[in-house]
Amino acid sequence: MRRELEEARKTVFETLDEVQRYYHAGSVLNFDMETICPREGMENQGETIAFLENQAFRLLKNPAFIEGGEFLYEHRDELEELDRVLAEDLHRSYMQTKNITPEMDHEFSLIFQKAYVDWLKAKEASDFSLFAPSLQAVREVQEKQIALREDALLHPYDTLLDDYERGMNRAVLDDVFGRCKEKMVPLLARIRASKKEIRRDFLSRPVTDEAQRKLADKLLTVLGYDFSRGALSTTEHPFSDGIARNDVRVTTHFYPDAFASSMYSVIHECGHALFEMLQPAENYEHHINHLKSMGMHESVSRFYENILGRSEAFVHLIDPLLRECFPEVMADVSERELYEALNIVEPSLIRTEADEFTYTLHIIIRYEMEKVIMEGKVKTEELPALWNGKYQEYLGIVPPSDKEGILQDVHWSSGFGYFPAYALGNFYNAMYYTRMKQELDVDALLREGNFAVINGWMAEHVFAKADRLTPGEWIRDITGRDFTPDDFLEYLERKYTGLYEC
Amino acid sequence: MRRELEEARKTVFETLDEVQRYYHAGSVLNFDMETICPREGMENQGETIAFLENQAFRLLKNPAFIEGGEFLYEHRDELEELDRVLAEDLHRSYMQTKNITPEMDHEFSLIFQKAYVDWLKAKEASDFSLFAPSLQAVREVQEKQIALREDALLHPYDTLLDDYERGMNRAVLDDVFGRCKEKMVPLLARIRASKKEIRRDFLSRPVTDEAQRKLADKLLTVLGYDFSRGALSTTEHPFSDGIARNDVRVTTHFYPDAFASSMYSVIHECGHALFEMLQPAENYEHHINHLKSMGMHESVSRFYENILGRSEAFVHLIDPLLRECFPEVMADVSERELYEALNIVEPSLIRTEADEFTYTLHIIIRYEMEKVIMEGKVKTEELPALWNGKYQEYLGIVPPSDKEGILQDVHWSSGFGYFPAYALGNFYNAMYYTRMKQELDVDALLREGNFAVINGWMAEHVFAKADRLTPGEWIRDITGRDFTPDDFLEYLERKYTGLYEC
Repeated sequence: MRRELEEARKTVFETLDEVQRYYHAGSVLNFDMETICPREGMENQGETIAFLENQAFRLLKNPAFIEGGEFLYEHRDELEELDRVLAEDLHRSYMQTKNITPEMDHEFSLIFQKAYVDWLKAKEASDFSLFAPSLQAVREVQEKQIALREDALLHPYDTLLDDYERGMNRAVLDDVFGRCKEKMVPLLARIRASKKEIRRDFLSRPVTDEAQRKLADKLLTVLGYDFSRGALSTTEHPFSDGIARNDVRVTTHFYPDAFASSMYSVIHECGHALFEMLQPAENYEHHINHLKSMGMHESVSRFYENILGRSEAFVHLIDPLLRECFPEVMADVSERELYEALNIVEPSLIRTEADEFTYTLHIIIRYEMEKVIMEGKVKTEELPALWNGKYQEYLGIVPPSDKEGILQDVHWSSGFGYFPAYALGNFYNAMYYTRMKQELDVDALLREGNFAVINGWMAEHVFAKADRLTPGEWIRDITGRDFTPDDFLEYLERKYTGLYEC
Repeated sequence: MRRELEEARKTVFETLDEVQRYYHAGSVLNFDMETICPREGMENQGETIAFLENQAFRLLKNPAFIEGGEFLYEHRDELEELDRVLAEDLHRSYMQTKNITPEMDHEFSLIFQKAYVDWLKAKEASDFSLFAPSLQAVREVQEKQIALREDALLHPYDTLLDDYERGMNRAVLDDVFGRCKEKMVPLLARIRASKKEIRRDFLSRPVTDEAQRKLADKLLTVLGYDFSRGALSTTEHPFSDGIARNDVRVTTHFYPDAFASSMYSVIHECGHALFEMLQPAENYEHHINHLKSMGMHESVSRFYENILGRSEAFVHLIDPLLRECFPEVMADVSERELYEALNIVEPSLIRTEADEFTYTLHIIIRYEMEKVIMEGKVKTEELPALWNGKYQEYLGIVPPSDKEGILQDVHWSSGFGYFPAYALGNFYNAMYYTRMKQELDVDALLREGNFAVINGWMAEHVFAKADRLTPGEWIRDITGRDFTPDDFLEYLERKYTGLYEC
């Protein structure tokens, strides 16, 4: 048995090593598409990415590989932990792709690639109708993919939610988001009614790209980002990209009249990057660096961005860096004024620019949109009106154009089901923040810029087992408690009633 | 017969379409390595590039493909022109790779990838000994590759020269470069002895990266570079990269105290890019965009950079652009002073920064170095001293470090034989400049910035048949004359005795 397991393992790993090469190449081409590839070259580059993905897919369909993977899965109780995790992942993805041929997979990829290009064009023209056919095509492809699966859940949207967050479904989200609305809507009304005056004039003072880049470099350094294993680029839509074990990049944008936007993009993406950079090396070697939860990842980025990044202690730490990078902007601003300005609560149109409080409402809108789209309850051409209506209802504002409304996010060009992860991330990180504070004097560490200790705690408690456990197991492992939005809602109430004296 | 040819053609094109996908992916990964990939990620990325190249190599070794290609070659007289050119190219590359297995090819690729990384490290440390083992390994790989070829010439270095420039060998180069030295060395002495005073103080005035980038964008626009099919990046060593039919990128560097350096890098790389952008579209569709001559390519880049780019008429055209981008630098400088400063002749250490006159001497040194390396006439550890001795002898200056000496160029990390192309490019472009002036009023066109006509002439006469003819046939097709360095030497003499009044 031992010898047969060894042989199966060898076959599986040889294939995965090759598959990894295709994924790596595809990642670099994707990063290039987002950062520099000229417009006229994109279609061809999209086809090459689809080609590479298809080559990987073909390898994964190889009967010897599948046989080896299934053999490991049958004998998973005899395997070491990481091999067992891998065997379970392989079995799961086998169940997902068993009935999909390489030709079908290639055809699907091309639809997603086209959807991305159409989304870009539609956003540029601020015209949803240019994206509508592709959106419809994406929905149909996802339904087709799910219909072909062996492990599909009762409803396609539940299947997608479960893909991004193992164990998640509409029932749980309806409950959790319902509780959020119940608590947050009255709280937002109190905040909006507050007489507290927060100064904000300096937030729109002009800052050059160079000064913002200088600050970005300093922030990344303070946070413990390892530049020998990463790089900072600029893109319209900031993201982080774990291209390889030693290549974890981040991007940001620079708006001349909104320096805080880039600052918090950088901190957010740095959170994602730290998660990747501080993964146990053996995860990569065992090919188990494919998360069972996007919410875990977003919990980390939003932890650095908001819970740490918008705290008084962190603002105290970075206040001198801002003064160094743009002295004129900061000349008449106190540290307290900076802290307050970076925590203003104000309904706005663009999710990625939203404040910490209203952000979750942007996510709830997207969740509700995805639900009706996947449930087929609304015609595609009616979606912009539905979107705008929800913005009116939850946030009291209406997007003046599709570009600032339904076309603002790239996500739907590659499918539905991702958005809830951002909100789940908030719930998770508030829970482990509760725990962290029991063990560390977080504020003191932030004030002295001691991210070695903070990142060390994160690596040990939050990152180390993320690839081995389901989200439910993982948050219980960190905190000893079951998943709940309560910590987040209490955190919001404490912080913002304090700030707004309401 | 017709049906069999059609079938062979179909098999060949299907394979080449796939091969092109691997090449495309490899090109993007290479570009990424040069522009943004973090240091610690490079080794892995180099391995992925080698993996992709190896996949392409395996496709090209497929018996059905080879059979198809050879069948086309046997019946090449029955084919249309482009199919015939392709059949000849395929046969040639079959002869080159017939005895090389995919495993051997993969092993070779890894050596070149490692050599690149070692070169980077050695250059950073300015220590040739860190690169020496890889240089030796590169030489051995090339000898091994050549020994395995069916079409090797008598000496390995002649084979390499012929690879980069069909029909070129040591005998021709010894003769041509000998004539250059004979003419140029006394002429350089006259120039150096001239009493002519050329103002240069403003060339080192500080210019920000942003101002230089603004100028670069304006220059590219003036020259007819199509930004919808390209992009400008920054790298230490500028280059152009024809990644795909509609993706032809250029890079430059910005030195704060040497704005002219970036200017001429941009013009040079734009020349390469125009060559790619203005190739007949059917060349790409027929997979014959693999040049038989690097000298043709360099002739174009150096034509735009020097013959056009350093002419009085072109300086007249761009003088207002410089004043717009950095008014303070240009405030007390006349157009004539600008022209003269951009044409100063002065021996210097770095090839890529050399003036138009001394540049060819840098190339002759590299040719002579490559020759003794490939002829095994000198020990690797003695190469820096030999290099420095030649700089002393030809240019009267000695590099103070390996970084400014033998380690300055990336080329040898991927093999020997390329350098002569730069000098051959000068000889070719002086010849077609002679011809162009018979048909066009080049100076008038430059003064009015009419690059539509200039680029149109280049597309018709210089670019259109570049992929179909050998260099000898090509230059005769353009000019009606056989290859000669005379036009170049006369051009240099006329221009620089005039400028230096000697």
